[in-house]
Amino acid sequence: MSDNKIMPDVQSDPDSRQIAIDKVGIKALRHPVRIASRDADEQHTVAEFNMYVYLPQHFKGTHMSRFIEVINKHEKEITLQSFAAMLAEISQRLEADSGHIEMSFPYFVNKSAPVTGLSSLLDYDVTFIGEIHNQVSKIYLKVVIPVTSLCPCSKKISDYGAHNQRSHVTVTALTNQFVWIEDLIDVVEKEASSEVYSLLKRPDEKYVTEQAYNNPKFVEDLVRDIAGALNADERIDHYIVEAENFESIHNHSAYALIEKAKKTLPAAG
Amino acid sequence: MSDNKIMPDVQSDPDSRQIAIDKVGIKALRHPVRIASRDADEQHTVAEFNMYVYLPQHFKGTHMSRFIEVINKHEKEITLQSFAAMLAEISQRLEADSGHIEMSFPYFVNKSAPVTGLSSLLDYDVTFIGEIHNQVSKIYLKVVIPVTSLCPCSKKISDYGAHNQRSHVTVTALTNQFVWIEDLIDVVEKEASSEVYSLLKRPDEKYVTEQAYNNPKFVEDLVRDIAGALNADERIDHYIVEAENFESIHNHSAYALIEKAKKTLPAAG
Amino acid sequence: MSDNKIMPDVQSDPDSRQIAIDKVGIKALRHPVRIASRDADEQHTVAEFNMYVYLPQHFKGTHMSRFIEVINKHEKEITLQSFAAMLAEISQRLEADSGHIEMSFPYFVNKSAPVTGLSSLLDYDVTFIGEIHNQVSKIYLKVVIPVTSLCPCSKKISDYGAHNQRSHVTVTALTNQFVWIEDLIDVVEKEASSEVYSLLKRPDEKYVTEQAYNNPKFVEDLVRDIAGALNADERIDHYIVEAENFESIHNHSAYALIEKAKKTLPAAG
Amino acid sequence: MSDNKIMPDVQSDPDSRQIAIDKVGIKALRHPVRIASRDADEQHTVAEFNMYVYLPQHFKGTHMSRFIEVINKHEKEITLQSFAAMLAEISQRLEADSGHIEMSFPYFVNKSAPVTGLSSLLDYDVTFIGEIHNQVSKIYLKVVIPVTSLCPCSKKISDYGAHNQRSHVTVTALTNQFVWIEDLIDVVEKEASSEVYSLLKRPDEKYVTEQAYNNPKFVEDLVRDIAGALNADERIDHYIVEAENFESIHNHSAYALIEKAKKTLPAAG
Repeated sequence: MSDNKIMPDVQSDPDSRQIAIDKVGIKALRHPVRIASRDADEQHTVAEFNMYVYLPQHFKGTHMSRFIEVINKHEKEITLQSFAAMLAEISQRLEADSGHIEMSFPYFVNKSAPVTGLSSLLDYDVTFIGEIHNQVSKIYLKVVIPVTSLCPCSKKISDYGAHNQRSHVTVTALTNQFVWIEDLIDVVEKEASSEVYSLLKRPDEKYVTEQAYNNPKFVEDLVRDIAGALNADERIDHYIVEAENFESIHNHSAYALIEKAKKTLPAAG
Repeated sequence: MSDNKIMPDVQSDPDSRQIAIDKVGIKALRHPVRIASRDADEQHTVAEFNMYVYLPQHFKGTHMSRFIEVINKHEKEITLQSFAAMLAEISQRLEADSGHIEMSFPYFVNKSAPVTGLSSLLDYDVTFIGEIHNQVSKIYLKVVIPVTSLCPCSKKISDYGAHNQRSHVTVTALTNQFVWIEDLIDVVEKEASSEVYSLLKRPDEKYVTEQAYNNPKFVEDLVRDIAGALNADERIDHYIVEAENFESIHNHSAYALIEKAKKTLPAAG
Repeated sequence: MSDNKIMPDVQSDPDSRQIAIDKVGIKALRHPVRIASRDADEQHTVAEFNMYVYLPQHFKGTHMSRFIEVINKHEKEITLQSFAAMLAEISQRLEADSGHIEMSFPYFVNKSAPVTGLSSLLDYDVTFIGEIHNQVSKIYLKVVIPVTSLCPCSKKISDYGAHNQRSHVTVTALTNQFVWIEDLIDVVEKEASSEVYSLLKRPDEKYVTEQAYNNPKFVEDLVRDIAGALNADERIDHYIVEAENFESIHNHSAYALIEKAKKTLPAAG
Repeated sequence: MSDNKIMPDVQSDPDSRQIAIDKVGIKALRHPVRIASRDADEQHTVAEFNMYVYLPQHFKGTHMSRFIEVINKHEKEITLQSFAAMLAEISQRLEADSGHIEMSFPYFVNKSAPVTGLSSLLDYDVTFIGEIHNQVSKIYLKVVIPVTSLCPCSKKISDYGAHNQRSHVTVTALTNQFVWIEDLIDVVEKEASSEVYSLLKRPDEKYVTEQAYNNPKFVEDLVRDIAGALNADERIDHYIVEAENFESIHNHSAYALIEKAKKTLPAAG
């Protein structure tokens, strides 16, 4: 920047407080992105970015505009893999040992209604969370999956009916190889009382109603059954699974969480 | 204010653009309040205020700090009735023909579980909306009531079960005499598939499950049945009733609205 | 639908309550869309839809799935003009005299920094609001434009500095001919203390700082100056302009609103 | 519960999946609370609760209604200290080794304007976060403090003016003795470019404008200066300080975070 020569660069001043900053950067910046998807070529969506780096104690400030320049360079398709390049780039451009990016966006999957087969898009909230430290990066994939949950207790004690509701299941996974967003969605939808859809005709509505009734799950069952499936998936090293049921009989939620670090890191040497 | 003498009062400057402002004031100010309640002496809660006045074309600006002073004066209990005094006060203090106040707060009602009778508090979002024009004021009472809705179609076409979910019913009412918040809540809870509660033991859960199943309602039924009850209530001159079902089989809501101005104003003279 | 023959169609049952429903439909459905833009071919973004129709008193319910089918048909680019086709289609598919659609999405404009000319995208929240009644439709364009506002009073009474902050200006306009989203943005950004940008280098930061200081505006000035520009724009028949300043010296906002119906409808015959 | 005898207790069934649940309970329940305050006897406000316990692998479910019963018992004033009793109670009532409670509420402090001395209430978002494990509990106090930040770079490179904005500083602290909410607020407000107030007259507005201009701080300076003060406070063992500037020249935020565990736990024996 030629402006460095004529204008004071306050951010580059030395700092005497001897306090490093764990994360400094930009938050809540929106930008359009293209995401690789398993079942189609790619999809266009809009992401919100948080981007931070580590700032050593001897620098007064970071150069916020460089984060924007890194996003602007990545006009091409972003995948879980190319996302790693952005991590490397911010730590390099900001001369930082460590970097952190969160990129959150609505993601759409084309689903077929269970009986009529009519297709419609369902929306999921997805976040890529990346951390880089000394050029080694870890990327977490986080997906919020809306499902139906039906209460086993309500079913068992009632002469007919059972309360059910929309639930949000959130899976956050650290993987050792490439995993599609849709792969995590499949795991969760299989374990729910029922999947949800945007478009259902009457035969479909009958199907999902009976399916949920035949398949009651507590919020505890949801996270355990999904944890069982994630335990068996060798591509996943570490996960958190959460379920929040927006209870139809209360004005508050039921909630459960399981976290598991499956692998300990191999000893060096 | 003695500071008027020594500092320029930019807001009181004349304005030559010849454009009046319909509403000007403060937004999103939080303040603790005490609300009169039907079944107890009063309750303490926290309100968010929006307060606006009309500004004629010849004034450059309003005096924002005076809105805060009006709130500060009303440390005492606020009712739908005393709320009218605040309306009069802002139009007087700001020298305005018209004024507008919205005051939104969570409100709690002590409910008894339907079988065990165990009591717990349920929360409702309430807004007082006041308008004053030439010293005549109108006050709307708006209450969001969470309930259970159970789908009649799903029940009818399915061999067992029926999808149900939490719904928000919102009633906004202009009344010709005093109406308690609890009165509007009663109307709505009576017409829902079932009421919701914070605390339910198993016999209660059996009761609300079967109650909802026996009482299926579309979002259309909810607003119509509530409209019927509000039509019959002579204290209410004008209302809007809305229902939003957070569908347990979709990731979007079903929604319905009925508005009715029951009375035309009497001719003068 | 062949399922009509084998399954009861509860929604089509007659209804005896004799209460029509002003709006019934779906709310908060997300779907990807493509929007025509003034300065580029088109852009991809994600919209949230609310879609309602009028339901006469003799029908028990509407057919919610048909709203989804209308959205699914419009995979092509949506403009303010083609949006009118969706309005016509929902009223036809749902056999309703009246229909209402709201479609809200983040929209991006490529802006050049004022001195260095570096380009970056800025995000705006846009809503198309459409109403159709007896085959006559009206479409409102609503845009939220983030700007900088700098307080004239603070500037005048202080020996140096002046408090400033981010403000949201919202323009809702009914037009008699095509108006680009960017046209409304231009009107607002011209009248603010300063525009905001995603990417600013130091010479740009100096420019916007001094520009805002040279151009102080109360929230009242913002809405008046924008109203003046909208009054002069003959393409606009009716508008609401709102400004909310997220005050840097308070924890609440300053707010102002002007509404103007410029034309009265021509008398018939 | 006598209902245990007549109705099946599904939650108490044995579970064969051999997966423990880290957290299970209720989320987003609102309840009025009274909080002890430093400068007045106590204050009434409304809290949102999340309450979870650990569930061993051999139990199918937890008893959600017991969380509500624990809240209902604590109608009396809640302090950081009495909050510990709720933690002990949920782990005991739910027969769990571990428990977790988050209680979030708006909190008000009566502030005097800097010149006129006029008093008004300012609102802060406060959360008590409690964890208990094997009867040992830790309680974190988290406070969000709105302040003004003024940009040092903008001030230095501009001939006049400087961009400033509202910022949210969040301090989360683990203490080894009692610390008032107001104590954390004092630390932060002292280090900001300026405090914010609900009620300011013109002499006050002049004061805070000049005060901010005389006291420019990057988001990095904010967290460092507050970290310095927290480092010197021996009552605090561990803290996280975050600052988010809602930049007046951008539509995104600047953000910084410092975390410090000051003490390592003493070795046993």
